[in-house]
Amino acid sequence: MRFTVTGCAGFIGSSLVDRLLQDGHSVKGFDNFSTGRHEFLAEAHRSSHFSLIEGDILDTSRLYAAIEGADFVFHLAANADVRHGIERPSKDIEQNTIATFNVLEAMRQAGVRRIAFSSTGSIYGEPEVFPTPESCPFPVQTSLYGASKLAGEGLISAYCEGYGITGYIFRFVSILGERYTHGHVFDFYRKLMRNSQEIEVLGNGKQRKSYLYIQDCINAIMTAIQHPQAQAKINIFNLGTDEYCSVDQSLGWICESLGLNPVRRYTGGERGWIGDSPFIFLDCSRIRTLGWKPQLTIPQSVKLTLDYLVSNPWLLEVR
Amino acid sequence: MRFTVTGCAGFIGSSLVDRLLQDGHSVKGFDNFSTGRHEFLAEAHRSSHFSLIEGDILDTSRLYAAIEGADFVFHLAANADVRHGIERPSKDIEQNTIATFNVLEAMRQAGVRRIAFSSTGSIYGEPEVFPTPESCPFPVQTSLYGASKLAGEGLISAYCEGYGITGYIFRFVSILGERYTHGHVFDFYRKLMRNSQEIEVLGNGKQRKSYLYIQDCINAIMTAIQHPQAQAKINIFNLGTDEYCSVDQSLGWICESLGLNPVRRYTGGERGWIGDSPFIFLDCSRIRTLGWKPQLTIPQSVKLTLDYLVSNPWLLEVR
Repeated sequence: MRFTVTGCAGFIGSSLVDRLLQDGHSVKGFDNFSTGRHEFLAEAHRSSHFSLIEGDILDTSRLYAAIEGADFVFHLAANADVRHGIERPSKDIEQNTIATFNVLEAMRQAGVRRIAFSSTGSIYGEPEVFPTPESCPFPVQTSLYGASKLAGEGLISAYCEGYGITGYIFRFVSILGERYTHGHVFDFYRKLMRNSQEIEVLGNGKQRKSYLYIQDCINAIMTAIQHPQAQAKINIFNLGTDEYCSVDQSLGWICESLGLNPVRRYTGGERGWIGDSPFIFLDCSRIRTLGWKPQLTIPQSVKLTLDYLVSNPWLLEVR
Repeated sequence: MRFTVTGCAGFIGSSLVDRLLQDGHSVKGFDNFSTGRHEFLAEAHRSSHFSLIEGDILDTSRLYAAIEGADFVFHLAANADVRHGIERPSKDIEQNTIATFNVLEAMRQAGVRRIAFSSTGSIYGEPEVFPTPESCPFPVQTSLYGASKLAGEGLISAYCEGYGITGYIFRFVSILGERYTHGHVFDFYRKLMRNSQEIEVLGNGKQRKSYLYIQDCINAIMTAIQHPQAQAKINIFNLGTDEYCSVDQSLGWICESLGLNPVRRYTGGERGWIGDSPFIFLDCSRIRTLGWKPQLTIPQSVKLTLDYLVSNPWLLEVR
């Protein structure tokens, strides 16, 4: 099959590109390299079935060129910065909501009929039910990131209904593993490299979060889009592990792995930042009924991510 | 208080403007007159507490002028055309989603701290629970109109959380009454004026819908925004009656009122158009606990709307 992957040079995008190529598909990648890395596409470029179109997703003509002729679009391009939404609100709406609209319009014009979208557990805001299923009570948004992804989900669903497109929406917990470039492991590791004696923790450290290993995430996506039981107009799946950990626990694993014992200084409060969800724990039984299950636990994923960062110091350099 | 009302020349907007002026408030109205009517502002213009800024909501500098200095913004400007979304998908995203973002950004820059938003029961898609409460299972969008309004809701909620704004979201059923300018009563009446012998009904006529009288709607809004129990960051209310009717029933009341007995020709199918919800019936107990209740039944509202259209033939002219 011919796949287009937007955000192809990102953490998840590039991992997916490699997998699609390994599985024998051809892939057109699209990225503006605002956060994506050329280095992550090194393996892809060795394949004759990979081509790259560099462009911003707000540039509709370049986007159309990337989407035209595809059988299936993975729309992973996004502003994935959950934390700084309130400093730059237009970024979320442009890069997540309008971007998704542009992808859908390009698909409609080019006659492409299948899309998968990287959504987020953040759209559950601060849920009342744990673990949170896909059909939990209608949530209220607490972050611009979540709101912009919810808007993307809504657009995709409406296009699926209106234009006979088949859609896959994956609501991720935080993903860890090789090519990880932002998030709490990254932040803690960088802080500890600068000062191994003391570390600042956003919030009270008791926020509970769930994580999933990148290859488990890719396996889940590939399982869903190929499964005969997931061919409805719109197919929505939580993706996570059946466990969670506190920020403090995770920092403990990081420190242990590095052989450090810094003093922890907490900024305080139940939330690390405005719009931070104090507890993210998704019910993933829907994707599990398709036969998928994660291979790595959260502590294993944290450790592996840290090992990757230690081996790739170039990622910590300010670009 | 100083109110700004976007969409001030529309059906609901102009009715709200009149009510705010009657209650002694000052009102700045904003409208692009794409569907709004200068005639609806005749009463408002007689008040020295009313001023009008003509402009499109995508013109951020004119919008800022309308919002600056307000205590409270009613954001009612919208593309309210539920039916033709798939013919012009950009209209919903521009006029409903980006428009709402523009309003929120103007409020943030101008330091305005309260907003009310006209959302819709269409965001429930095709719900599983009837009557549908605000906290029903997380719905899947079936129309671009619903998706664009859901996106607006999400943005408002995120801004309320992020910037200390207080928000009111009203999920309306279809509103009927004086100044009604589009919807099924309008369409049926116009068709019957052209041909009283035969009438086309979209779908199988068995779609069940709920309606609310415009003054009941305005009363509900005013009740909510002033109520001490509705001062959370974000306050979400369904607005409707505790009843519903079928399209066939409603057409029956219209025909009876006009003394006509046309042959009904059905286009067939459970839905009148792609994205039409075959059953809309909202649980309005949340707003009722604040002491509000509707004064008119659905048949009374339909009759009154028809009487209004009969008395105002200019509204049926193609503009």
